[in-house]
Amino acid sequence: MHEWEEQLRALLSDKRVFTEIADRYSYSFDASFGEHLPEVVVQPKTTEEVQAIMKIANRFTLAVTPRGQGTCLSGGPLPVHGGILLDMAQWPGEINVFADDLIAVVTPSVLTADIHAAAEDAGLMYPPDPSSAHVSTIGGNLAENSGGPRGLKYGVTKDFVIGLEIVTPEGEVMHTGGRTIKNVTGYDLTKLLVGSEGTLGVITKATLKLVPKPPAKQTMMAAFTDMATAGKAISKTLTSGVLPAKMEFMDRACIEAVERYRPSGLPTASEALLLIEFDGHPETVKLEAEQVKKILESLEADPVITAGSEEEAQKLWSARKLVSPAIATIKPTKISEDATVPRSRIPEMMERLKQIKEKYQVELVVFGHIGDGNLHPDIMCDQRDEEEMIRAEKAVAEIFRAALDLGGTLSGEHGIGTMKAPFMEQEMGEVGVAMLKRIKEAWDPNNIMNPGKIFAEKGQKLVLRDG
Amino acid sequence: MHEWEEQLRALLSDKRVFTEIADRYSYSFDASFGEHLPEVVVQPKTTEEVQAIMKIANRFTLAVTPRGQGTCLSGGPLPVHGGILLDMAQWPGEINVFADDLIAVVTPSVLTADIHAAAEDAGLMYPPDPSSAHVSTIGGNLAENSGGPRGLKYGVTKDFVIGLEIVTPEGEVMHTGGRTIKNVTGYDLTKLLVGSEGTLGVITKATLKLVPKPPAKQTMMAAFTDMATAGKAISKTLTSGVLPAKMEFMDRACIEAVERYRPSGLPTASEALLLIEFDGHPETVKLEAEQVKKILESLEADPVITAGSEEEAQKLWSARKLVSPAIATIKPTKISEDATVPRSRIPEMMERLKQIKEKYQVELVVFGHIGDGNLHPDIMCDQRDEEEMIRAEKAVAEIFRAALDLGGTLSGEHGIGTMKAPFMEQEMGEVGVAMLKRIKEAWDPNNIMNPGKIFAEKGQKLVLRDG
Repeated sequence: MHEWEEQLRALLSDKRVFTEIADRYSYSFDASFGEHLPEVVVQPKTTEEVQAIMKIANRFTLAVTPRGQGTCLSGGPLPVHGGILLDMAQWPGEINVFADDLIAVVTPSVLTADIHAAAEDAGLMYPPDPSSAHVSTIGGNLAENSGGPRGLKYGVTKDFVIGLEIVTPEGEVMHTGGRTIKNVTGYDLTKLLVGSEGTLGVITKATLKLVPKPPAKQTMMAAFTDMATAGKAISKTLTSGVLPAKMEFMDRACIEAVERYRPSGLPTASEALLLIEFDGHPETVKLEAEQVKKILESLEADPVITAGSEEEAQKLWSARKLVSPAIATIKPTKISEDATVPRSRIPEMMERLKQIKEKYQVELVVFGHIGDGNLHPDIMCDQRDEEEMIRAEKAVAEIFRAALDLGGTLSGEHGIGTMKAPFMEQEMGEVGVAMLKRIKEAWDPNNIMNPGKIFAEKGQKLVLRDG
Repeated sequence: MHEWEEQLRALLSDKRVFTEIADRYSYSFDASFGEHLPEVVVQPKTTEEVQAIMKIANRFTLAVTPRGQGTCLSGGPLPVHGGILLDMAQWPGEINVFADDLIAVVTPSVLTADIHAAAEDAGLMYPPDPSSAHVSTIGGNLAENSGGPRGLKYGVTKDFVIGLEIVTPEGEVMHTGGRTIKNVTGYDLTKLLVGSEGTLGVITKATLKLVPKPPAKQTMMAAFTDMATAGKAISKTLTSGVLPAKMEFMDRACIEAVERYRPSGLPTASEALLLIEFDGHPETVKLEAEQVKKILESLEADPVITAGSEEEAQKLWSARKLVSPAIATIKPTKISEDATVPRSRIPEMMERLKQIKEKYQVELVVFGHIGDGNLHPDIMCDQRDEEEMIRAEKAVAEIFRAALDLGGTLSGEHGIGTMKAPFMEQEMGEVGVAMLKRIKEAWDPNNIMNPGKIFAEKGQKLVLRDG
């Protein structure tokens, strides 16, 4: 037995240290690409245990990769350098809502949906709503700075984190931020750590900001026969003084896939479907919906449907929710992207995506959070078909290029992880990447904290083929 | 002539390099405490010039301190290590609003109020509204992460910055973030730099996020006979589902000072005055105001006044705006603090402030952005009275202690600068300060970028007396 394994077993007992291949295998993948076996899986339950693990890892220069529920779309929890897999999902779940302070203090293992429920019980709301909320942990959301449809009005995970308890790569405990909404004491380590993809420390506790729960909602669906007009509708709505909570989009390929998967009378001849949700005071929601309806109709959206009840709203949203299962029937392998562009460039980006689809003959569908320019161009393919995967790789690289050409970004909400690391310099430039690395090296001199993420390894290229 | 001076003059010509004491003197102070003469003042107008200056500064290990209009309340633009004063206010002012993208691209020298105006012209709003907006530059706001009353609903400067052009301490150009609302590409350098008080680089351009301009506003004033009830009113309002744009507070000493300064019938027998502004859709604003009025009246606020017109609203707000000139008549020297506590601890903080006022016999007045727990306890004193200044120093230290005891922070919006540096470790702990320093050292190996701020010098203590 390795000396480090002895030390881990002494710390956590045999019950929370796993070295059998069968146990390790279930920690070797996430919802993105690639399989990487950790050398050992450990299940810490206290901050002190994480500290001790980090000290052992430094002593033996072992990589440490924290993992929540493994729903990540960019490879965050993949132990690409082997080493220690930190299974954070076994941590005792705790959600404490302090209604008077409009905050919640949570442990990393709780599911995001449980935070939503606890906030609602107090008449409050935790806005970030990644699609995976029912299965993903807040720890993972914090590491990746998850978004979601409500990002349009409310912002993303980072905008709702005001304090963290962190174990540094060298095993020290640090508290960043606090329980106040405003804080300008020193550099903003909270916002540096949220979205750092587990490369700067292990999050062991978080203080989240809550908002009053909006008393009413209204849902609207609008279909367009061409993308340029849909783009105008988005711009015109967002500059009209109304800020919807959500503004989601489905392209024709998505509409058709959903309608094939579960027929419900969607307008399959349309090029673009917008799903909009307003929230706030009942009177306002009604007025805002009317105002936007006029804008949509003036741009010849047809039909424009306003939900008359919560049930009807659910029915409209089900079209959007069925996108993922519906497109999964096209082909077995999904490459899920999240290139994001300035709102005014959405129609151009859609045009570029159309060209890429034709050029590489790939099954490219587009949906996503279009109100903030955050598209999800997904390529449906089959990993067993190598020739197709090569075309898919080229298409993905060109999607990134298109987003950057239009003043956009590689990733709006999924993170860089393993897959996008080779493209970082294209967006941030050599100086930008060098300045990021300086922070990483200063905080993690032995490079043991989730190595292989964000920063490309020498000569690393996008490869989707090795499974 | 020093070699570095020759090099600076060769770069900028004699017209933009100043070494005469009369010229340097006007750059030796800001709106906080202390006077520090720079060795030279330079006025760069391009990013390339800033790069060249930083390279000269590194070559000769000269401190570089960027300065906007010098309205800082924590010493950010004070050249405490002499060296080069970078007068950024001469930079050509440019504000480009891209309405379809809901963004504005600005140069560091523009006044924040001019950004407000440009956004409004496009039917949009730039929410951060520090009281100094009419005289402070956006560059200074960015360096200090300025707040303001609208922070309650909208957040602070950092929440509205999505991209920066930066000259690093070693003179390289770097672009962080971009023009998209969502961006999770690498560590969030944008939010690390905003609020870093000029210690990590020079901001030469910024991309700001704008929001739709709310079509209506409503102002309300409420007076309370005791602070505990006012505290309840704040909590109850903020958990009622209504989020006002502003919720400002004045204590009895402020009310009396303003009423003495310009009599307008303020309720001088009250312990607490709340000024609330709602914004949004006209119907909503009306309904929200009615709902909050009921809450205030149920807690026996008396009177509760709702402005019937824009003119009446202005009149109510003038009480809050007159606080600074009014309290300036109490004594000539103002120590302006911004300790911030979790909202639920506001009444306790008020009680602690009362005790501090009595214990040290200082003229302590309290006002501020109470909706987010961000108080401004200001001590009015006379710098020529050494004995009084010693009491004031002790009172300030105890205000910091009280804020931290109650789970709060040293600074909600003014920054750490020179004055609060000695207290940093009390809030962030030894590990926290050490991790901040690692970033600073990694980015600025020669420690030339605004040294003497945030990090306490060896043995540094709070001293308000040396002028």
